[in-house]
Amino acid sequence: MTEPERQELTEQEIVQLAESLEEKLEESKEHEAVSALTELSPEMAGEVLGRMDTDVSTELISHLETPDAAEILQEMPPDEAVDLMEELPQEEQAELLQQMDPREAKVLQDLASYPSDTAGGLMSPEVLALPQHLTVEQAIQFIRREADEKEIIYYTFVVDPERHLRGVLSMRDLILADPKTPVEKLAITNVVKVNASTDSEEVARLFAVHNFLALPVVDDEDRLLGIVTVDDVIDTIREEGTEDMHRLVGVSPEDKVLSPWHESFKRRHPWLLINLLTAFAAAAVVSLFQGTIAKFTALAVLMPIIAGQGGNAGSQTVTVVVRGMALGDLHLGEGRIVLFKELVLGILNGLVMGAIVAGAAYLWNGDPTLGIVVALAMLFNLIVAGMTGALIPLGLRFIGADPALASTIILTTFTDICGFFFLLGLGSIMLK
Amino acid sequence: MTEPERQELTEQEIVQLAESLEEKLEESKEHEAVSALTELSPEMAGEVLGRMDTDVSTELISHLETPDAAEILQEMPPDEAVDLMEELPQEEQAELLQQMDPREAKVLQDLASYPSDTAGGLMSPEVLALPQHLTVEQAIQFIRREADEKEIIYYTFVVDPERHLRGVLSMRDLILADPKTPVEKLAITNVVKVNASTDSEEVARLFAVHNFLALPVVDDEDRLLGIVTVDDVIDTIREEGTEDMHRLVGVSPEDKVLSPWHESFKRRHPWLLINLLTAFAAAAVVSLFQGTIAKFTALAVLMPIIAGQGGNAGSQTVTVVVRGMALGDLHLGEGRIVLFKELVLGILNGLVMGAIVAGAAYLWNGDPTLGIVVALAMLFNLIVAGMTGALIPLGLRFIGADPALASTIILTTFTDICGFFFLLGLGSIMLK
Repeated sequence: MTEPERQELTEQEIVQLAESLEEKLEESKEHEAVSALTELSPEMAGEVLGRMDTDVSTELISHLETPDAAEILQEMPPDEAVDLMEELPQEEQAELLQQMDPREAKVLQDLASYPSDTAGGLMSPEVLALPQHLTVEQAIQFIRREADEKEIIYYTFVVDPERHLRGVLSMRDLILADPKTPVEKLAITNVVKVNASTDSEEVARLFAVHNFLALPVVDDEDRLLGIVTVDDVIDTIREEGTEDMHRLVGVSPEDKVLSPWHESFKRRHPWLLINLLTAFAAAAVVSLFQGTIAKFTALAVLMPIIAGQGGNAGSQTVTVVVRGMALGDLHLGEGRIVLFKELVLGILNGLVMGAIVAGAAYLWNGDPTLGIVVALAMLFNLIVAGMTGALIPLGLRFIGADPALASTIILTTFTDICGFFFLLGLGSIMLK
Repeated sequence: MTEPERQELTEQEIVQLAESLEEKLEESKEHEAVSALTELSPEMAGEVLGRMDTDVSTELISHLETPDAAEILQEMPPDEAVDLMEELPQEEQAELLQQMDPREAKVLQDLASYPSDTAGGLMSPEVLALPQHLTVEQAIQFIRREADEKEIIYYTFVVDPERHLRGVLSMRDLILADPKTPVEKLAITNVVKVNASTDSEEVARLFAVHNFLALPVVDDEDRLLGIVTVDDVIDTIREEGTEDMHRLVGVSPEDKVLSPWHESFKRRHPWLLINLLTAFAAAAVVSLFQGTIAKFTALAVLMPIIAGQGGNAGSQTVTVVVRGMALGDLHLGEGRIVLFKELVLGILNGLVMGAIVAGAAYLWNGDPTLGIVVALAMLFNLIVAGMTGALIPLGLRFIGADPALASTIILTTFTDICGFFFLLGLGSIMLK
């Protein structure tokens, strides 16, 4: 890599460059992208990579010569560098670490040991830890020496010699305080912090509730390990939203609107196959009543109404419950409240919809018994829809799975099967 | 309100208190909640209100005596106070403003003039604007005088006498610089900023791309109006996710998992009624083929398979497209790429699923023609599902509506109607 003079790109130029490199990769001009990147200083190249989606920046890094890639990675904030490295094959990771300054390599290896969906995986180890015996004046000198390497110095933390977290201090407190005050006196000792193993969704919730810009991360012994900043969490929150929406309908979170068709095919197909099996189950229920259908074809006409309303009402319930869980609105033990509410809603919706459908069926067909059959089937199916719409995500969470996991697909199977069973079963008994 | 000594609650105590007050309101113990709140200093009461959901804090404020409420509101960050006030009836707002310090009232009235889903609606006017002629030393003194009132002082902005935005300066830059340097020299002049009328979704995207903690807000003349901080945007991002997920299935974003059943009923019912009308349309298609169904009841058995697969494949497409738009992955003019991709996927899925269903139908029923009928119906319906799944959100955006607006409900109507038409129509022609 050529060693240009230190260039400073503006924020806007960095983002524009990141976008133009992404486009080059999409158009398979890897060569151009690589040479545009290596023309930058390693520091700026790191900034540019940091603004790309991880899958794109990983591709770009894998096209670079190993020494170039290593140089760029060690200039990036360690949390971003690790996210990127972890996407590469194991051997490439080892080669890259070999090429780095051993101290930097150690930092990255330590970070890589935390799962990416925990506070440890989100955090940057570049945190300002002030020894507790400093005064404000000494602290500011300490910060001047250290600041360049640290990602965020809006908060500084006070630690004892064993690096136990003793307090937090904002830059603002430091600047406003008397220079002779010991930092220990100035620091807020009741620090909100997270353990390295805390789930990233929980971290996101903490940021949303408290209006923090950063949170310290500690180990089980309360020793300061690093800091999670709010910008890392924004990505988490957006990714979670995508995950929930996609999973509800059985799509992998990695399936993007502009992914190539063959990737989307691979990612959507499995759930469609599973859904086909469940559709066979619904069809099997219908096949039990072929004799009844041959006599009363009106039942076949009403089938999509009963099944469709069940599916839609149930999807509403599933969505509200899954989203409520994701936002942390629904706590353990409140499942019964939700079940009761959805039962009431199912009965109400069933009575209203049942009455309308019964009226319409009678007007069309002239047989009052058909009206009663269809009204009862609608009532029963909407009760099933409300209850299963709540039970599926609650049950998935209870067994430790993602509540959104294809919930809508499981639900519509239920409402189809039950709807057909109620409609055709009641029809075969009551219609003459 | 009693005037207690200035208390300082820790962050954790504030959040706990906010939660306990929310519970009291849920249990209809308004009186207890009000007296717990008025025991606090107005400042702390403001902090507590700031940690609640807006609907809860509004309810609480409306139970307070007007002078108490006014005192608390003027201690809150103005952007939060306005969000809260705007939920109250017009007369109550006027009374509250009357009770406030006129200067504070003016700030709130100005803020209220921006729609809540714009940068102006999100911003706080409490921003540190350094006159451009100051030195670093003078700037730090200036900050010491002003800091108490300002929400965030991690960034300061440099302005000219007409308050035109001239540059940005971080606290870190100030602390590390030589005290004699003019701030004008130190400031970065190429500031990323947003206009007050910028949509809040666009603001959220800016924060997600650039890792900012705050963005300055300017008017059309480039004069500094205020600052949007990342914590305001976190709420926006979470709310947007909820909005999209809920709207897809025809639920109002205000419908929460623990909302009382009568509110949820009011909010979900309209779309279920609309869906019922569309279900009648699907039923009408089936009714055209009653003669065919009476002869070939196997077709009634296969109906749910064709319609169900269409609905599921189409929901996958709708979800991926809607989410892609929300994340800003899909730009104008890329609609054709998506349509083409979904066409390819529809054909592929249709061929695979059609072959499986044809085989199953033949094994079960023994009539090879039925296999051909069901395979063609599946192929055609999955093509329709992919195309309409992409066209509905693209079309909604084209006419300026929300792409998520009940898209799944519109889609399943389409796939039901087309699925039944293909299956029964082909059946009536081809089966003997």
